[in-house]
Amino acid sequence: MDETETLPPPADDERDVDIYGEDGAVRSSYLARVGAAIADRDVLFLRSHVGKLHQSELGHVLEALQSEQRAALIELLGDEFDFAALTEVDEAVRLEIVDAMPNQQIAEAVQDLDSDDAVYILEDLDQEDRDEILAQLPFTERVRLRRSLGYPEETAGRRMQTEFVAVPPFWTVGQTIDYMRNNADLPESFSQIFVIDPMFRLLGAIDLDRILRAGRDSKIDEIMHETRHAIPATMDQEEAAQIFEQYDLLSAAVVDENERLVGVLTIENIVDVIQEEAEEDIMRLGGVGDEELSDSVLSTSRSRTPWLVVNLFTAFLSASIIGLFDGTIQQMVALAVLMPIVASMGGNAATQTMTVTVRALATRDMDIYNAGRIIRREASVGLINGMVFAVLIGMVAGFWFQNAELGGIIASAMIINMMAAALGGILIPLLLDKFGADPAISSAVFVTTVTDVVGFFSFLGLATWWFRLA
Amino acid sequence: MDETETLPPPADDERDVDIYGEDGAVRSSYLARVGAAIADRDVLFLRSHVGKLHQSELGHVLEALQSEQRAALIELLGDEFDFAALTEVDEAVRLEIVDAMPNQQIAEAVQDLDSDDAVYILEDLDQEDRDEILAQLPFTERVRLRRSLGYPEETAGRRMQTEFVAVPPFWTVGQTIDYMRNNADLPESFSQIFVIDPMFRLLGAIDLDRILRAGRDSKIDEIMHETRHAIPATMDQEEAAQIFEQYDLLSAAVVDENERLVGVLTIENIVDVIQEEAEEDIMRLGGVGDEELSDSVLSTSRSRTPWLVVNLFTAFLSASIIGLFDGTIQQMVALAVLMPIVASMGGNAATQTMTVTVRALATRDMDIYNAGRIIRREASVGLINGMVFAVLIGMVAGFWFQNAELGGIIASAMIINMMAAALGGILIPLLLDKFGADPAISSAVFVTTVTDVVGFFSFLGLATWWFRLA
Repeated sequence: MDETETLPPPADDERDVDIYGEDGAVRSSYLARVGAAIADRDVLFLRSHVGKLHQSELGHVLEALQSEQRAALIELLGDEFDFAALTEVDEAVRLEIVDAMPNQQIAEAVQDLDSDDAVYILEDLDQEDRDEILAQLPFTERVRLRRSLGYPEETAGRRMQTEFVAVPPFWTVGQTIDYMRNNADLPESFSQIFVIDPMFRLLGAIDLDRILRAGRDSKIDEIMHETRHAIPATMDQEEAAQIFEQYDLLSAAVVDENERLVGVLTIENIVDVIQEEAEEDIMRLGGVGDEELSDSVLSTSRSRTPWLVVNLFTAFLSASIIGLFDGTIQQMVALAVLMPIVASMGGNAATQTMTVTVRALATRDMDIYNAGRIIRREASVGLINGMVFAVLIGMVAGFWFQNAELGGIIASAMIINMMAAALGGILIPLLLDKFGADPAISSAVFVTTVTDVVGFFSFLGLATWWFRLA
Repeated sequence: MDETETLPPPADDERDVDIYGEDGAVRSSYLARVGAAIADRDVLFLRSHVGKLHQSELGHVLEALQSEQRAALIELLGDEFDFAALTEVDEAVRLEIVDAMPNQQIAEAVQDLDSDDAVYILEDLDQEDRDEILAQLPFTERVRLRRSLGYPEETAGRRMQTEFVAVPPFWTVGQTIDYMRNNADLPESFSQIFVIDPMFRLLGAIDLDRILRAGRDSKIDEIMHETRHAIPATMDQEEAAQIFEQYDLLSAAVVDENERLVGVLTIENIVDVIQEEAEEDIMRLGGVGDEELSDSVLSTSRSRTPWLVVNLFTAFLSASIIGLFDGTIQQMVALAVLMPIVASMGGNAATQTMTVTVRALATRDMDIYNAGRIIRREASVGLINGMVFAVLIGMVAGFWFQNAELGGIIASAMIINMMAAALGGILIPLLLDKFGADPAISSAVFVTTVTDVVGFFSFLGLATWWFRLA
């Protein structure tokens, strides 16, 4: 605790001090100061400084603190604790914090949040806790949150914000501006207002800059654009993100099955979706499931097992190919020494092709117009690189074992396997995609199985045939 | 050409017909219609329909057409051709189109674009062409574009839009709204206005919804927020994207070294940056460089070679480890059959750990506060999974070759290699990051080298020692 005494008294602008160090992590000096204040129960410092942080900054601080410190900090902050910070932390940290809180406190806090943030926190809770919290909310709020929670995970309906500004088409710009000036119950921020009929059916939308540029007498239905990008609440969030990207939207109306406006999807949420989806693809390509850094050893170990099990089978498959040629190997051990080279080069080339294909499919850059051309291109690249590396590897192997014929055999196997790598690398993801499987999740294992099997079989098979070793 | 005759006459609302099919690609029927109109030089149809497409839709149509059709379409569209569509196509397609155009035509078209789009098109041109085009632009425009182009690639300054709305702090909301109503020379769309002093130094910013909610008499400096997120023009675009994500920004001021406002970075551009950066990480993890689907066979083959060369060296390194034990293998061919299993399982486990680590570093989820904990977690996961799969593989191998001792040896090697995989998978990216290298680009090859070398060495070494085969 001596540390606190040597620190200067908190100045009023300390809140503006950058809490992040050079490396982008929360400064350890800042964390030490907060830790000391928690230990001292220095409510004044915590409320006036930590309580004023942006929700994402507070989230980072919470993640960096110890578990007991988190609970104490939230208790000491009291009403100054910005509940939205919980949307910024790891799932494990969020659940730890929320589980420790009485449901009534959560219900009160949730009322101050935008509905998308509230849903984000509620969706991970047990059905029982969630129902208890919802029961304590005012009627309108409860209905709105229930509606969002009723849509499946990863849909626009689950991600939308139910607070929005909507006006009738016959209003003027002046009336609209006056309405916004006098209505306190607006969303925290918005970039677009919507135009609806008496049945709440969506007629159009207007960007705020358009309202500001129009005269007060302009009629809303004259300046609105009939929105061509209304998003059905049941649409997958990834598809919604693609629409945002393609049309450079800042927000979009979400409509139910009767074309009625039920919410708005904002670019802030879409940015999170884009990140999540890219993350998911990277993780799947690496053979990792839906895991977080804060997961426990056992759950991590469990989540990584399926992929390793699949790899186990394919590794035994490759081994049994080698087993077919055990007589050959016994007569020429050099084959055992060289065979991993053929498999490894093929695996590497196949991974390159597969990565390009999986991404092109995910971003829809690949379609029926260019698939044929790309397959031809990959096959040509495989052939060219196959020949280049065949010559290199053949020469090195020939010198190493003083056996030119062996060099020729490994070179031939290399060309065969690099072609297999190119074709497998593009056709396997394409076929998986065609049959509705996610190419990111399952391509890698199939593709490297192909290059292992073809690599070992072509190399050992050619050697057996050429040297008549069978 | 018979096809066109059977098509219904273009209705006035054909533009609203969805040009995309179920699979997200441009419908082939639509493309056929456009192709026929190009062949017939049906300017009326092309201008009234293709000319009215959104820039991204037009981009997709351009990409799907044949090379000669593209040039003809642009010529037939004339002034109706939306030059911004060029920002939506592959680099190769863009260069093909732009190279075929006289510089004067480009100069005229560029004047109608927002500056960020103009820069996007100009930056890929030869220095000579670019200078010629810039020379034909009006003075202000030229200065602005030159300034953007003067900032390094992938910086905020290169990505920013130089059109923005800026007002002095002493204006009222009413004056500001009147200014926007009467000033035709505003950016195409904006979500924020900036407040500057007479020296163009940035004082603050106001979101449009805030202006709309404030009374006409409110003073600008009372409702503005002193922006804490001004972005230096030289900041890397990835860092800028992280600020946007953290603080949920829709736009941010870009300032030069004297704190003067020079442009605005918009979320639309940031979304592109986020996509590009995620793309880059995926490609690098897959050992693929900066390639595009439209690249030629030779340039693709060249760009993939470096990684294959590195893999060639590491493959020979692994082979030479096996070569150390050729005597052992000759006496017990089962070792050659089983050894790829140990290496492959290790490689797989290491890739999992590496993927998680590389992503955590990229998203800054991993820092000095949790690195120690995560290293311990990964080591524990490696040990647990190592033991589980050691038992499985040991039993299968023991039965296969009717040799329990061999089963025990492969099991021991598995545990050693899975631990090496876990530690290599996390420590190698961490060290690369520490020394300023991009872990995404170089981790994979180091990590699998570790698991190959440790796998072969531990398995063959243990076997040699146990069976006294040396």
